[in-house]
Amino acid sequence: MKLATIKDGSRDGRLVVVSRDLRRAVGAGSIAPTMQFAIEHWGWVSKPLESLYDALNTRAPMEAFPFETRHAMAPLPRTHQFVDASAFLNHGEILTRAMNVAPKLSPGVPVLVQRQSDEFLGPCDDYPLRTESDNADLEGEFAVILDDTPYGCTAGAAQERIRLVTVLNDMSMRAHVVRELQMGFGFFHAKTAPVFAPVAVTPDELGGAWQDGRVHLDLNISRNGEWFGQPNGGEMDWSFGELIAHLAYNRNLRAGTILGSGTVSNRDWRKAGSACLAEKRALEQIAFGEARSPFLKYGDRIRLEAFDGEGISIFGAIDHVIVEAR
Amino acid sequence: MKLATIKDGSRDGRLVVVSRDLRRAVGAGSIAPTMQFAIEHWGWVSKPLESLYDALNTRAPMEAFPFETRHAMAPLPRTHQFVDASAFLNHGEILTRAMNVAPKLSPGVPVLVQRQSDEFLGPCDDYPLRTESDNADLEGEFAVILDDTPYGCTAGAAQERIRLVTVLNDMSMRAHVVRELQMGFGFFHAKTAPVFAPVAVTPDELGGAWQDGRVHLDLNISRNGEWFGQPNGGEMDWSFGELIAHLAYNRNLRAGTILGSGTVSNRDWRKAGSACLAEKRALEQIAFGEARSPFLKYGDRIRLEAFDGEGISIFGAIDHVIVEAR
Repeated sequence: MKLATIKDGSRDGRLVVVSRDLRRAVGAGSIAPTMQFAIEHWGWVSKPLESLYDALNTRAPMEAFPFETRHAMAPLPRTHQFVDASAFLNHGEILTRAMNVAPKLSPGVPVLVQRQSDEFLGPCDDYPLRTESDNADLEGEFAVILDDTPYGCTAGAAQERIRLVTVLNDMSMRAHVVRELQMGFGFFHAKTAPVFAPVAVTPDELGGAWQDGRVHLDLNISRNGEWFGQPNGGEMDWSFGELIAHLAYNRNLRAGTILGSGTVSNRDWRKAGSACLAEKRALEQIAFGEARSPFLKYGDRIRLEAFDGEGISIFGAIDHVIVEAR
Repeated sequence: MKLATIKDGSRDGRLVVVSRDLRRAVGAGSIAPTMQFAIEHWGWVSKPLESLYDALNTRAPMEAFPFETRHAMAPLPRTHQFVDASAFLNHGEILTRAMNVAPKLSPGVPVLVQRQSDEFLGPCDDYPLRTESDNADLEGEFAVILDDTPYGCTAGAAQERIRLVTVLNDMSMRAHVVRELQMGFGFFHAKTAPVFAPVAVTPDELGGAWQDGRVHLDLNISRNGEWFGQPNGGEMDWSFGELIAHLAYNRNLRAGTILGSGTVSNRDWRKAGSACLAEKRALEQIAFGEARSPFLKYGDRIRLEAFDGEGISIFGAIDHVIVEAR
């Protein structure tokens, strides 16, 4: 099943069911007015929503309308908890090699970052940058959206609480990362609002690409129409279930919690490219002795998208332009 | 005006207006069903809520009922952003002296920690502790609740976005603090659900105690009925407005954002005591060469409360017991 949230002027938008080919949508208001409501009442609403999805794929109900990405908000335009992992160790290792930034990691303990969840941007919203000298960067990630997950949950049970999967561009302001990392209390100026794909899908929608609590899909990324990377989500060093269990060690996680994978990163980067400029620049530093790719500029256009075996865009595309904040 | 949220089985509870003496309450449902709704529609609802408050203080409307703290949830039982500052430098200095933990702070840059906001506990809810060996600690703080606050806001303008003030016990698991601080990405196992006072009040309710964007009130804290401390909130090294402006440097802050002051801490600790065990233990370490106060045990009862000039409890009391998590 594919779900999206359409702009209607409200903070939480309006839930719609989207056809598998992303061409059509139908309002889900009679079942669940918002995505937050749907996640909170999943046991009651998922079956009726699936029926609507089946109808939308097999015939076009009269109430269906064309689905346009530019009208989409983030699937959850805001939520009560967003945690971003850094679950591809390869990414951290490359940055450490190039930049002499070595956080004191504990073996076996995943890197997680508690993040703001009061405002997520939609896939085609202009991205307001305060100044180019903040060294803006993209970060392509997969993410999961959780139902209520209890205190002390195991990795296996945690994985069963995953309701939806999506993609995000977790924008970073690299000029602030090292300073905030050295302080040790997490990120503020380094981490502005993330941008989400238009569509979130149930794990079954991924078929064989959803395995071991990982998304085994290439995340295709371009900058100004030029290939940037297509790293695969399967190389995560922790499964989403393991990350959730770590989080739930001594707290409940409540419905709507979003957990990001961290920048997708592959060991075979020559083939896969990167999902962020920091890593690409670090690889350039190692190879050429200097970083060659500039950070994001006003007017830069970023696109992120993943496809199924038939070449259909699974989550729709993030396709947004960096603009000067007013 | 004093507002609270009463348990009704839902995630967001039911908004009530509470009398100045905290004895009576009246449902606010006809104006705003929940605190989140009230904050989001402040321009429309604050005047009618004030009228209800005035009526409640001057006569007892028929619909009024006794206000009982044990039925209260946190004023915002969940929200979309919770940031905790560490705005009393004295606290950090004592800990650094005693424990050789010295985060690399940038002069003039406040310490802020992005935190989970999916579940806050009510003032009398039992506090579930996974294990006593997590070294549980209380942390007494003041906090403000914000309306929408725009990207790039100045400190002066930011302060005008403060709608409510309250108190929290921001529980910490000290066994995990140093490890997570050394990683540099913020806290998870070290920071479980915080506990809020039953009542949040508009700044005007504090009279002269609300000055320079600081709460000039003693925060009275006891453990098992014994005096623990009464540090005053006026010694904050940054005003709430300055902290908010730092946060809003390159992002919007959306209605319902909660900003905590960090552990209240005074330079004259001999008179004021402390608002957390870590600081009390650090002072013992400095004075006696050893920490003498044990971390929290199952069955320990913690109480936090602030009073106005007439001896009336302003926010009501946090009064909760540490229990073993099931």
